[in-house]
Amino acid sequence: MKIAIEPVDQTLSEQIWKKIDTKTKPPGSLGQLEKIAAKVALIQGTLKPVLTQPTIVVVAADHGVVAEGVAAYPQEVTFQMVMNFVGGGAAINVFARQHGINLKIVDAGVDYDFPDLPEIIDLKISRSTRNFVEETAMSVAECERAMCNGASLIANLHHDGCNVVGFGEMGIGNTTTAAALLAAYTGLPADKVVGRGTGVDERGLLRKQMAVEKALEKHGRGMPALEKLATYGGFEIATIAGGMLQAASNRMLILVDGFIVTAALMAAHAINPDVLEYCLFCHTSNEQAHQAMLDQLGITETLLNLDMRLGEGTGAAVAYPIITSSIAFFNEMASFQDIGLSDGS
Amino acid sequence: MKIAIEPVDQTLSEQIWKKIDTKTKPPGSLGQLEKIAAKVALIQGTLKPVLTQPTIVVVAADHGVVAEGVAAYPQEVTFQMVMNFVGGGAAINVFARQHGINLKIVDAGVDYDFPDLPEIIDLKISRSTRNFVEETAMSVAECERAMCNGASLIANLHHDGCNVVGFGEMGIGNTTTAAALLAAYTGLPADKVVGRGTGVDERGLLRKQMAVEKALEKHGRGMPALEKLATYGGFEIATIAGGMLQAASNRMLILVDGFIVTAALMAAHAINPDVLEYCLFCHTSNEQAHQAMLDQLGITETLLNLDMRLGEGTGAAVAYPIITSSIAFFNEMASFQDIGLSDGS
Repeated sequence: MKIAIEPVDQTLSEQIWKKIDTKTKPPGSLGQLEKIAAKVALIQGTLKPVLTQPTIVVVAADHGVVAEGVAAYPQEVTFQMVMNFVGGGAAINVFARQHGINLKIVDAGVDYDFPDLPEIIDLKISRSTRNFVEETAMSVAECERAMCNGASLIANLHHDGCNVVGFGEMGIGNTTTAAALLAAYTGLPADKVVGRGTGVDERGLLRKQMAVEKALEKHGRGMPALEKLATYGGFEIATIAGGMLQAASNRMLILVDGFIVTAALMAAHAINPDVLEYCLFCHTSNEQAHQAMLDQLGITETLLNLDMRLGEGTGAAVAYPIITSSIAFFNEMASFQDIGLSDGS
Repeated sequence: MKIAIEPVDQTLSEQIWKKIDTKTKPPGSLGQLEKIAAKVALIQGTLKPVLTQPTIVVVAADHGVVAEGVAAYPQEVTFQMVMNFVGGGAAINVFARQHGINLKIVDAGVDYDFPDLPEIIDLKISRSTRNFVEETAMSVAECERAMCNGASLIANLHHDGCNVVGFGEMGIGNTTTAAALLAAYTGLPADKVVGRGTGVDERGLLRKQMAVEKALEKHGRGMPALEKLATYGGFEIATIAGGMLQAASNRMLILVDGFIVTAALMAAHAINPDVLEYCLFCHTSNEQAHQAMLDQLGITETLLNLDMRLGEGTGAAVAYPIITSSIAFFNEMASFQDIGLSDGS
């Protein structure tokens, strides 16, 4: 998995901030909106950025680790929720419709044979990963295939005119997978990386912690970045990680959702740290260890803190209008000079 | 200023939460969006809430206290920014257009004779309040007139079909006014209520603090709620306070913006505490004492924390799509029962 990413060219930075600071407002008074506008303008290398064909790619897969009793819901909820996405009734459908965001639904490894539906993009590696408490979740070859699938999907989106992509996920058990990845990439102990996910009770939480502990004992943390992803990851996470690397390579803006998607970014970042420059962090999840992931990536602020922990890319979708607000003020607001206002100096 | 406000009827609460908890998502996983949906449904007394003709009312006025050197911008910026609103080039114009929010521009006391423009609603009391360091900013009669003006404007909006209203403001010097109100309503000392506003330097900050201190020494804090508003307030703040009381009386949803608008709410709340039940707090301003106001009102969470401090109602406008997301999931998401999904129980 070799994808070249150019660091974002900073040449326009001064002109961009001059444009922001001459708008009819006190300097800095639009806070994070100003930083977002500057970031997107730099990524696009223009003083007139535009977001085209915004898309959220929701990737679903099942997880062998559910055998450890780590999930609050039965495994079949993964495929049932995929069918809910197809039917348009899930939260991500609602928010994507609301904001005119295209939705792509991907099967990267759901333990179910879907009928042939035009709404489901078939990138299935196999029906569920293996249980990483007992063996590696994927082979390195499977992991690479999943990443290439994600990369190829995003390359196609880009080719069709999309320049901003968010990722979402569905997979019963995948907060345990993401927790294991967090532990593997950071060295944090098991009790600092697990959380309640979709709502396990105290005993479920202990089972999650024990599963991660056992897995860390078995496999360790000593392997290269991609092998870590293969060992502890999930098919949806690998697909997303590959998609992120490709998106950065195509200079697309990447909308990072919550705990699982940030785990995918940790993997992508461990493979190529330049991916980070193309990312906007849409929300801080209520899943406790999300903050630890953000800390690890050096991210000090996200757009939303609404105690959400639903996944599916819902954090990215709900945050999207904040991003369009940033672009709108940057492109549309009058400057002091435009209208002959006193600028306070 | 007597406006009756009915406390929100809680009868439907159980049914509303049952509807939320049977959606295809883990219970609680949409965080604040769930609370917003429940609040709006209760306010409207329905399981199918709808937001109609969303409107932001931006009220402008000038402040006698600018004579104390408290502002970073010259006073004429107030009328210049009103003309910017008319021209459509200000931040609030951009965000209102983006989200389909109607914008009303009100002159409650700008120190300028506007030409007769259809875009400006003339509710002018006089050209600027007086300097509250030396005398009361308004007479009680002026304050009541401003409040009645605001109430009447909102009653008309409601009559025309609007059920959700945000407030914004423009007034050079008005962070000092809002700080004085905060001190007057809470007993906080001057150094805890002032902040940098649109960006005063260290000396400007001390002048603000001194102005508030002198005013408190002169007038004290012992008068009734409405007289406090008259003594320390501004015409835009009184107009907004009256508008808020009317909005609550009409069971409209009130979108609370930042420091100045929350000062208006403190005044309204001191007159009739039931107004609070109709309010959504859209953002926490970067103006330092906004948090103290929110604490005083018992508000523990707001929708956005984006370090914004622009005023004009921009925090309410940028937060608006989060509110529509809440209503959308509540009305549009499938339930477990709808589609025969396992609900985890």
